[in-house]
Amino acid sequence: MATGTGIRTTSRLAAPSGEDRLLDWLRRRSPAAATDLLGDDAALLAEDLAVTVDHQIEGVHFARGLDPAWVGSRLLAVSLSDLAAVGALPRYAFLALASPPEADRRRLFDGLLRACRRYGVALAGGDLATSTTLHLSLTLVGSRPPRARWLRRDRARPGDRLWVGGDLGGSAAGQLLLATGGTVAHRRFRLPPGWRAAKEVNTAARLAMRRHLSPQPQLELGQWLGRRRRAAALDISDGLALDLARLCRASGVGAVLRPATIPHSPGLAALSCRLERSIDDLVLHGGEDYVLLFTLPPRLRPPSQFDCQVIGEIQAGRTLLREDGGRLSPLLVRGWDHLRGGGRRTPNPTGDQG
Amino acid sequence: MATGTGIRTTSRLAAPSGEDRLLDWLRRRSPAAATDLLGDDAALLAEDLAVTVDHQIEGVHFARGLDPAWVGSRLLAVSLSDLAAVGALPRYAFLALASPPEADRRRLFDGLLRACRRYGVALAGGDLATSTTLHLSLTLVGSRPPRARWLRRDRARPGDRLWVGGDLGGSAAGQLLLATGGTVAHRRFRLPPGWRAAKEVNTAARLAMRRHLSPQPQLELGQWLGRRRRAAALDISDGLALDLARLCRASGVGAVLRPATIPHSPGLAALSCRLERSIDDLVLHGGEDYVLLFTLPPRLRPPSQFDCQVIGEIQAGRTLLREDGGRLSPLLVRGWDHLRGGGRRTPNPTGDQG
Repeated sequence: MATGTGIRTTSRLAAPSGEDRLLDWLRRRSPAAATDLLGDDAALLAEDLAVTVDHQIEGVHFARGLDPAWVGSRLLAVSLSDLAAVGALPRYAFLALASPPEADRRRLFDGLLRACRRYGVALAGGDLATSTTLHLSLTLVGSRPPRARWLRRDRARPGDRLWVGGDLGGSAAGQLLLATGGTVAHRRFRLPPGWRAAKEVNTAARLAMRRHLSPQPQLELGQWLGRRRRAAALDISDGLALDLARLCRASGVGAVLRPATIPHSPGLAALSCRLERSIDDLVLHGGEDYVLLFTLPPRLRPPSQFDCQVIGEIQAGRTLLREDGGRLSPLLVRGWDHLRGGGRRTPNPTGDQG
Repeated sequence: MATGTGIRTTSRLAAPSGEDRLLDWLRRRSPAAATDLLGDDAALLAEDLAVTVDHQIEGVHFARGLDPAWVGSRLLAVSLSDLAAVGALPRYAFLALASPPEADRRRLFDGLLRACRRYGVALAGGDLATSTTLHLSLTLVGSRPPRARWLRRDRARPGDRLWVGGDLGGSAAGQLLLATGGTVAHRRFRLPPGWRAAKEVNTAARLAMRRHLSPQPQLELGQWLGRRRRAAALDISDGLALDLARLCRASGVGAVLRPATIPHSPGLAALSCRLERSIDDLVLHGGEDYVLLFTLPPRLRPPSQFDCQVIGEIQAGRTLLREDGGRLSPLLVRGWDHLRGGGRRTPNPTGDQG
């Protein structure tokens, strides 16, 4: 798991048993990697640099045949979201690329370099090799902005408001569409074969695929939060509920979440019906949103340009609750579980209720 | 190729055509990655840090079935050699590891962490995933030691002496043995099935396998060289001749090499006969030595503890010559060619003679 080790897993296959035991074992054996060095979403070095490493493997993290330009640009965006979560200024990228001879690497680099230019990242090095499947590993280095400190996930306090930096659920819907035959060629999105729906649902479906393939790392929001004394944050990669549980566990607090206040794109409700998924499933447990989840004291609010939304409050104790129309109930914590594969129910990381 | 881009290729398979064109194309498209940022064996960041990324893929860079502890420790050593070549002090390692469920990852981390402790490197983060083959990508971050500057490959001047930091050829012999059925289990080396030779040849063969699997990155020598005003260096990864050609090209000079003076381990001559390879083949073109090749003005010599050897001189012009018993002839430049696969004859990078 991402929390507290700097080593994390991104397996989307049913993971081998013992993954969590491996990480526990590693923590015991690598004392240097145990404390301050290890940041939250990125490792925070003594040299005021944040470093993050992300894998993307064809057939594991993305579908075989996905346009390499999207593979390249998405990898950068996903990794940048880790830097956004610690409030870093992105600086350098290093790509280890293993690809089959027939892979269109120019197209992949085209996508990657375009994204690098957009976010002010220098592709500073890498290593190319030949392999049977497309396999990318991206290292990103970011610096701590002047007058800022690193943003962390362990600074939430009872009474803080819980915020989200953008709309949720679209990426998970898009991933479902891409996994069931939806495709993209250049910038043209095609719905899965046999797909039938109302025009506005089709529009929402195409938007959702774009949302999945083109995450918008919230770097400026992260940097703004890094200049606040009392902010906690992480980026939502594994579903709001699971990532909220991580933030609460790191901070030693509980939370109450108001699902009705969570922003999602207009057509998502209708799209979720067509996909036969509940909107809760997509918004609370879908994952890969790459939007910041953060807390601020009640007197502080992010500038309106960031379009953030209050979705709950931090509370004393360790329980995670949801409030629907004034009624409180336990929040189900579920999501992409790095340890057990996607979508399966997992024990509540806060340990207080199931 | 490694030189001058920060992006390099480590394909040991017959590489797809157009690899060099891809790199040229990348250089044109990534101006940020074009100049000072890009070091020689590692990228040199404005923050006084050097970063290197190395791939190791099962079946490409190492044989299937190799003890994972050796895979882990060797990957670190090979990457550290890049830091040695720029005179950096190793600091942090980040591992992206994709492995089949049945892989013994604890054993791999055991080897990696043992090597980390030995060289004072902190394993600071990483990313774990599941895949069908074992695939490692290691990012190393090193710092510039106090009162030193980065060691580079473009500072050789006519009249400088050409030095090598250790013996050559053993690693290439060991690789041949491992590729033809030699194995290692824990610390016990087994010769290929059907192997017959004199006892001293067997000893040399086991040593060679160890030499291949356990390179000794010359970090202290690199740091010593970094404190000299007039030193040029790189690490020999692709064979002495080819890497000498790179150093000469980067510095705009030529060289004369005296093959008889190149150190190699005692049993290597007999072992090369048994392997039906000329000693030149192993020593000049074998590669994967991970020993520093460097130049110094004649008045300077490295401290005796580093056990370095003068093997030639830098000359004006661009030609690469060898001197055998007073007779000069062109130096054949051949070696692991990242662009065309191992062992094939390649155009002379200095462009003056073939």
